[in-house]
Amino acid sequence: MAIENKFPGKDVSLEDLKTKFPLVAKKNNNHKSCFDISGVTFGSDLIPIFAGPNMVESKELILDIAQNVKSSGAHFLRGGAFKPLTFPYRSDKYKETRESGIEWLKIAKNEINIPVITEVMEEKYLPLVCEVADILQIGSRNMQNYPFITACAKTGKPIMLKRHYGSSLRDWLGAAEYILYEGNKNVILCERGVSVPHTHRETSRFLLDLQVVPAAQELTHLPIIVDPSHATFWRPWVKSMALASVASGADGIMLEVHPDPPNAAVDPLQPIDYKEFSDLISSMDAVAKTQERKVK
Amino acid sequence: MAIENKFPGKDVSLEDLKTKFPLVAKKNNNHKSCFDISGVTFGSDLIPIFAGPNMVESKELILDIAQNVKSSGAHFLRGGAFKPLTFPYRSDKYKETRESGIEWLKIAKNEINIPVITEVMEEKYLPLVCEVADILQIGSRNMQNYPFITACAKTGKPIMLKRHYGSSLRDWLGAAEYILYEGNKNVILCERGVSVPHTHRETSRFLLDLQVVPAAQELTHLPIIVDPSHATFWRPWVKSMALASVASGADGIMLEVHPDPPNAAVDPLQPIDYKEFSDLISSMDAVAKTQERKVK
Amino acid sequence: MAIENKFPGKDVSLEDLKTKFPLVAKKNNNHKSCFDISGVTFGSDLIPIFAGPNMVESKELILDIAQNVKSSGAHFLRGGAFKPLTFPYRSDKYKETRESGIEWLKIAKNEINIPVITEVMEEKYLPLVCEVADILQIGSRNMQNYPFITACAKTGKPIMLKRHYGSSLRDWLGAAEYILYEGNKNVILCERGVSVPHTHRETSRFLLDLQVVPAAQELTHLPIIVDPSHATFWRPWVKSMALASVASGADGIMLEVHPDPPNAAVDPLQPIDYKEFSDLISSMDAVAKTQERKVK
Amino acid sequence: MAIENKFPGKDVSLEDLKTKFPLVAKKNNNHKSCFDISGVTFGSDLIPIFAGPNMVESKELILDIAQNVKSSGAHFLRGGAFKPLTFPYRSDKYKETRESGIEWLKIAKNEINIPVITEVMEEKYLPLVCEVADILQIGSRNMQNYPFITACAKTGKPIMLKRHYGSSLRDWLGAAEYILYEGNKNVILCERGVSVPHTHRETSRFLLDLQVVPAAQELTHLPIIVDPSHATFWRPWVKSMALASVASGADGIMLEVHPDPPNAAVDPLQPIDYKEFSDLISSMDAVAKTQERKVK
Repeated sequence: MAIENKFPGKDVSLEDLKTKFPLVAKKNNNHKSCFDISGVTFGSDLIPIFAGPNMVESKELILDIAQNVKSSGAHFLRGGAFKPLTFPYRSDKYKETRESGIEWLKIAKNEINIPVITEVMEEKYLPLVCEVADILQIGSRNMQNYPFITACAKTGKPIMLKRHYGSSLRDWLGAAEYILYEGNKNVILCERGVSVPHTHRETSRFLLDLQVVPAAQELTHLPIIVDPSHATFWRPWVKSMALASVASGADGIMLEVHPDPPNAAVDPLQPIDYKEFSDLISSMDAVAKTQERKVK
Repeated sequence: MAIENKFPGKDVSLEDLKTKFPLVAKKNNNHKSCFDISGVTFGSDLIPIFAGPNMVESKELILDIAQNVKSSGAHFLRGGAFKPLTFPYRSDKYKETRESGIEWLKIAKNEINIPVITEVMEEKYLPLVCEVADILQIGSRNMQNYPFITACAKTGKPIMLKRHYGSSLRDWLGAAEYILYEGNKNVILCERGVSVPHTHRETSRFLLDLQVVPAAQELTHLPIIVDPSHATFWRPWVKSMALASVASGADGIMLEVHPDPPNAAVDPLQPIDYKEFSDLISSMDAVAKTQERKVK
Repeated sequence: MAIENKFPGKDVSLEDLKTKFPLVAKKNNNHKSCFDISGVTFGSDLIPIFAGPNMVESKELILDIAQNVKSSGAHFLRGGAFKPLTFPYRSDKYKETRESGIEWLKIAKNEINIPVITEVMEEKYLPLVCEVADILQIGSRNMQNYPFITACAKTGKPIMLKRHYGSSLRDWLGAAEYILYEGNKNVILCERGVSVPHTHRETSRFLLDLQVVPAAQELTHLPIIVDPSHATFWRPWVKSMALASVASGADGIMLEVHPDPPNAAVDPLQPIDYKEFSDLISSMDAVAKTQERKVK
Repeated sequence: MAIENKFPGKDVSLEDLKTKFPLVAKKNNNHKSCFDISGVTFGSDLIPIFAGPNMVESKELILDIAQNVKSSGAHFLRGGAFKPLTFPYRSDKYKETRESGIEWLKIAKNEINIPVITEVMEEKYLPLVCEVADILQIGSRNMQNYPFITACAKTGKPIMLKRHYGSSLRDWLGAAEYILYEGNKNVILCERGVSVPHTHRETSRFLLDLQVVPAAQELTHLPIIVDPSHATFWRPWVKSMALASVASGADGIMLEVHPDPPNAAVDPLQPIDYKEFSDLISSMDAVAKTQERKVK
């Protein structure tokens, strides 16, 4: 195949997509991928909900959260055992739980009977993480780590590819093309906020890019989900942005939920609590139903 | 009042707001301005809709549009007679209609009985524009033209202040403070897209910042409305972003509507047509009702 | 002239420029405007220096500064009497000196015999400001205030047009076209920092865009000068960025100079003192001479 | 060590740096790392130059380039054998030369006697790349791939860490801390352009952030070099930005050089040719000498 790439694309056009990203590109206007992961359908009228803590802090915590989010209607339990940190030091509280975290996730998955999505950061941990993950999460910072993406793709596991906060839609779809190129078709895109010149609080770094939902759906058949927790980094805004995400046409929602948000080990400003989550599920479902979709 | 401004604020904090922008700042968490303009209530459960063409192209066109958007449920007719253009040349098609446009708006307002919002760009045209406008629109490019803002405020007319596409929330609220400072309390904020490192199409310049809706509502009692037409600059994305705006908690929606979008005199990529508008009103109303609000 | 503007330009191409901005566009690769203002040549091998305080705080201060910067080699005295402020309140210290400031500038100009550049913000003050200004400064916030720009252009005075911090090169050149369109040929462009996703200090808002120097010079014949003081907002970085501006090919440099920077009435983090200015003039001249240009 | 990270830093403060990035932080104002790599001193008055093609296209080409850039004064030969590409397809021309490229680099290094810097993208290729590289280049896309950075650090080889185009100074310095944390002290930072809301050509994606040079030097003792070729992506602007980089105080310059730029296999818009490089070396040296530094 003769590929020319004389000029780097800041934006992406359908023509560009069809020649350079043929597997990611829609074949026609109605083309939309629909697939099943652990009994949950993606790309249909259902809008699956991923919920859980930023970090799998302990066995007790993850069991409690798994129980609660499942009973409120979450389809997947999310929780990190491996997590990239901006600098190499770890406090007693702010640290990854790694192998233990994976073990606790496994217990929660089995006892509560809920599928799991969790991040993997290194090829060498793929076998371990694949033991528990129904969906492998590739984090923002690894979005352009193509050898690693390829290794994840080759496991055959469904993959959720988070957009880097400095990434164009074109760069993001190019990374997804690497996964599809390996024959792995169960790819979910996840928007989680982008860096912009002006945020709105000292504590906020990102702005949720909901315009990318219709923009991506115009070009690709892959489901696109939205993570308002990381984008806002601020619990009081999560409800507003979650409802807006559903109304925008997102194909799934990822939320950080913790029983005691101010005491979460990591990023305590952003999780919502059980009651807020339960109420939000109902609100999101009501919005979804006005668009012939549903959350529960 | 002793004001120190040693450091420029990129973001805005509530403390900063309360000392430097005391009139814009909420007095308590439940503080929300509620006022009536030409029989339409802002800041209540109603989400008023502003609809119409980018440019008031002719008497016939604006009468037809006024009739149609009113019957579909619009609360205000929008349409520009004065419009800032990036360079000084005008084609036969791409030009302002100025005094004629104001005259045609007046006819539409009276014959169809619908209140009007239109942009004013110069102090000398304030008397003329005030003859027809129920709300004066201050455009993005004039957001920091403080002498002009002050002159508009002094007319006593309700004012909609559009955010500049390169402006922080702090700069925007500071401009609103200038209006309130003149004793003019009927101020509406309008988000219309911001410049970001990555947009999604060659033809798009802006990204709709819906995160600013909860962020602004956390700080100010003023109603905040959203203009998805200018932000997306792309008709196929307008529905998605309009519904998301309603779900985010916006206090009003501004939409560009034209009977024949591809032949609109200005910005033909962005207006929706009558049928799309009518359907969108129903969809927005359905979303609003899930949040105990309403569009009609 | 038939002008089509179907799509908004995020960037500017030479073809676009030649059709829509014919007066701003270079006629050939070597086309460069060269003109004289009050005995100082712009667009030649000389790199004129504008120096002075942010605010004309008092008669004594501006006389002292005028004397000092002139003896160190400044070609123009800069100083603001009118200044846009983000919110309407003024402290005893942080306020405009307005008519008094203009009067003091006039005294400094006459006693020290140095030409003056100062900002004008309203059409009604044009006659007053034109009494003292050898160059009218149009500030960032007024860059797209086209009626005002046109009024300034019609005075026939040389104009320095500052780039808005959220403005594209295309928007900036379009604003310059408005001035040339009125027959006023003495136009100087001034880069002063742009809003970006990441700045480098809590107190910094902007990033100096030096890449715009060769980019603008590729397209337009107008001189482009650089203001590192406002861009950096941080005195320790001013020298580095001033030297880089000269090396980049800038056609002039604007610097904030104050005898006692920490006690400057406005923006005390950014001015350099007399000694730093004097040393910087020599360093800039040395850099300029390596490129067959000169500062003194 | 007790580390709290309640709020994510958009900017970096010296206090933040000293507690969270103690190895990267300057110990005092005059603290500057100075080290030798293959006989070339970094962090002194010398400003080392890295020059060569984007891709090591063939043995003949790299030998010719090595010979030419060395005779003009380059201190290191740069050239990529491994290169991340935005999508998985490769044309006949646009592809990595991988093991062959490393072999050709080795020949050029030995025959021409010039040290080499080249990118490594995967841990498994570290032994191969370390055979030829005097400096390992970690590319922008891997800046936050912490396990990989750590593996590179452990080789003991000097490392050049490119800044991601969406990265804050804080994120960049945090990544450098990971390398120093492994006991590897020979770390060079490289600025290569950041994503911003407005670039200046359809073909440009980035803006060179020269303000980061004094900003980084205020905080860290590590040398910081600048790559104007990738930042501008446009040959006519490279000279201007290279000279500005030297004047800004950069501790090294990286340039793309190709004998026939329009026919370069990758990114043909950005390399300069031999004559331009030779002239630029002289110009950079002249600028450097005005600041008591030197290029040759």
